[in-house]
Amino acid sequence: MRCEVLAIGTELLLGQVVDTNSAWLGEQLAGAGIDCHFQVKVGDNQPRIVAAIRQALARADAVICCGGLGPTQDDITREAIAEVLGVDLDLDEEVAARIEEMFRARGRTMALNNMRQAEVPRGAQVIPQRRGTAPGLICRLGDRSIYAVPGVPHEMRDMVERAVIPDLMARAGQSATILSRTLRTWGLAESTLAERLAPRIAALDSAVSGGAAAPTIAFLASGIEGIKVRLTAKAATQAEAEALIAAEEAAVRQVLGPAVFAVDGETMESTVGGLLVAAGKTLGVAESLTGGLVGSRLTAVAGASAWFRGSVVAYATEAKRALLGVGDGPAVSESTAREMAAGAATALDADVGLSFTGVAGPTDADGQPVGTVWVGVAYDGATDARLLRLSGGREQIRQIAAISGLDLLRRRLLGL
Amino acid sequence: MRCEVLAIGTELLLGQVVDTNSAWLGEQLAGAGIDCHFQVKVGDNQPRIVAAIRQALARADAVICCGGLGPTQDDITREAIAEVLGVDLDLDEEVAARIEEMFRARGRTMALNNMRQAEVPRGAQVIPQRRGTAPGLICRLGDRSIYAVPGVPHEMRDMVERAVIPDLMARAGQSATILSRTLRTWGLAESTLAERLAPRIAALDSAVSGGAAAPTIAFLASGIEGIKVRLTAKAATQAEAEALIAAEEAAVRQVLGPAVFAVDGETMESTVGGLLVAAGKTLGVAESLTGGLVGSRLTAVAGASAWFRGSVVAYATEAKRALLGVGDGPAVSESTAREMAAGAATALDADVGLSFTGVAGPTDADGQPVGTVWVGVAYDGATDARLLRLSGGREQIRQIAAISGLDLLRRRLLGL
Repeated sequence: MRCEVLAIGTELLLGQVVDTNSAWLGEQLAGAGIDCHFQVKVGDNQPRIVAAIRQALARADAVICCGGLGPTQDDITREAIAEVLGVDLDLDEEVAARIEEMFRARGRTMALNNMRQAEVPRGAQVIPQRRGTAPGLICRLGDRSIYAVPGVPHEMRDMVERAVIPDLMARAGQSATILSRTLRTWGLAESTLAERLAPRIAALDSAVSGGAAAPTIAFLASGIEGIKVRLTAKAATQAEAEALIAAEEAAVRQVLGPAVFAVDGETMESTVGGLLVAAGKTLGVAESLTGGLVGSRLTAVAGASAWFRGSVVAYATEAKRALLGVGDGPAVSESTAREMAAGAATALDADVGLSFTGVAGPTDADGQPVGTVWVGVAYDGATDARLLRLSGGREQIRQIAAISGLDLLRRRLLGL
Repeated sequence: MRCEVLAIGTELLLGQVVDTNSAWLGEQLAGAGIDCHFQVKVGDNQPRIVAAIRQALARADAVICCGGLGPTQDDITREAIAEVLGVDLDLDEEVAARIEEMFRARGRTMALNNMRQAEVPRGAQVIPQRRGTAPGLICRLGDRSIYAVPGVPHEMRDMVERAVIPDLMARAGQSATILSRTLRTWGLAESTLAERLAPRIAALDSAVSGGAAAPTIAFLASGIEGIKVRLTAKAATQAEAEALIAAEEAAVRQVLGPAVFAVDGETMESTVGGLLVAAGKTLGVAESLTGGLVGSRLTAVAGASAWFRGSVVAYATEAKRALLGVGDGPAVSESTAREMAAGAATALDADVGLSFTGVAGPTDADGQPVGTVWVGVAYDGATDARLLRLSGGREQIRQIAAISGLDLLRRRLLGL
């Protein structure tokens, strides 16, 4: 079973709105074991919408049209579908009554053009509206299906979960379940990852060609978020797919070791927070070039107050001295990084101190080239520091310094 | 001139990554006066990528392929383009040398598969890489063009601005110059903005229907970045377009007043920095719920050290007392916000203090509901505070608190 997604709206092509609906739909289709090979965005233009629907039905068993069901003149998805089906639009009395009722309930007078939303291609099945005023549609053309849902995300999601996915699965006589898991890594180049995993990928490929079901492995470089390794498994049941994924995760972790810092929606900061809680320790941070970025990431984790005491953003040299007790040495140096880490722990009454000092650019500073960063850690009465040499623009250097420093702390908390 | 966008990557179809690149590209194309009728997402599958490129070239003059240029086995955009062109891939010695140099500079050993990124379809022009290791491509097929750029957003944007849009405009023999200017606003609802500007928009519409060239006005609600008002003018020469835009900007500013805080790439923080420099003042910040976000935004401005002294992120109550001299009152209150602002100015030896305390959620705290935020300002020996009641999730509340507080300081520095 294959289904394409067609997102309709000129505002999507102009970049005024980012199309998040297609990504969500793609996730739902994958979860239901339905392949999605193409997703298309098209503007509010009937001939082009018609051409896009026809092409989708030529390549796939179904298409979900998202958007263009509103009451205004540029909402023409209904007309386009009717043209593809070769039928007229009829006023659906039941839908019309429901729209009138919705306006009455909200105490608003209804503009006449709202009745356009009660027009339905002849023979189509209506997905009743629950939230907005536009109903969805299920239409058949031979053995193919055309679904239409509104572009407003919460209305769309409701109708897709309630009617579209169940209809697609029923028509597919669906059995397979697809599961994905993403392992997030830091510290290895994409090419190094690829090289280390190559034997594993080759083994999986030959397992597939041998006829057995095997998971797949894919990489995704996410810049300042590290490199993601995605495992995907397809199986007859949820339990089988889960077992396949779990076994593959174990095999990949064996190869990548501590480079894996998080799974799926976890982040570097939530991992660090979890390790601090497990160790019963609190954290204080001292930031110079990162300017608050590290504190800001750590406090994005709900419940951070259990382990995060605060951060001293000492941008001015005198602030480093007054608040962190740093001596007279050069601002970007190993000794300053160590002093800042120890000073953060003391000033914030924390068990662990983490510090960042360096040159984010755009120009060299303190006799050090742009990209020179020292990260310091104060832990168990001792201090330690590491030198990073980063490239990129100012913001990239700040962001990479932040996650690199958190990774250093993670490895320290793991005893590595 | 028409150009389609082809976003390449299975992770996009599976919804693991939202395709924001296409939206950004659509905005750039529209700004350059180039039509974009279709945007397509396709997975890492060579026959399907080839079919999608061929179809785009059948419908349009050009296609921008985004993604699939990395070093791994599933990065096959280069191969697909070579197939469409009917040529082989050659190793580009110059690109290869640059990739090797990049690894050397970072002190990392290069895995061999990175050399895949130096392979170029025969006859293609290379867009040199500046940030990542993958170069972009400009290829011709008859009078059509195929562009390839990386999927990593900052690398993609750099290459598109530097090479793709200029090449497209040159090939379009673009005679008309299209200029856009974006006025960024904070503090007005979209409907209020629309209402205030309605007479201006009506005047422009009638000027157009009268045959004269007139700019256009469009709104773009950008959530935590405020609402953008985009002015676009089309004229025979750059100078004429600039004059049209300048006149329109003056008219719009007349209507919107101090709600306009920045133009184009300027930000709230760069505006605040400029006002501090003009006033000869330095700033110290105290943050609770924002956790470092404010300091991190301010230090994203190059040269911030001239006016930003630092920030005390006092997440723990004791840190507020020890580092900021805050008394025993409730943490989320007007008096604490005032004390934090004054304490930040003192502790960081700054002329102006700005503070944030509140409840970001997910649960109520200090007897205050989620979304309660106090912003304090210490200026010229006096303190002041304002209460915000924000809605949304934890991160949204933190972000809106940060920009709202900076806007409050901006208005204070403007003497409003």
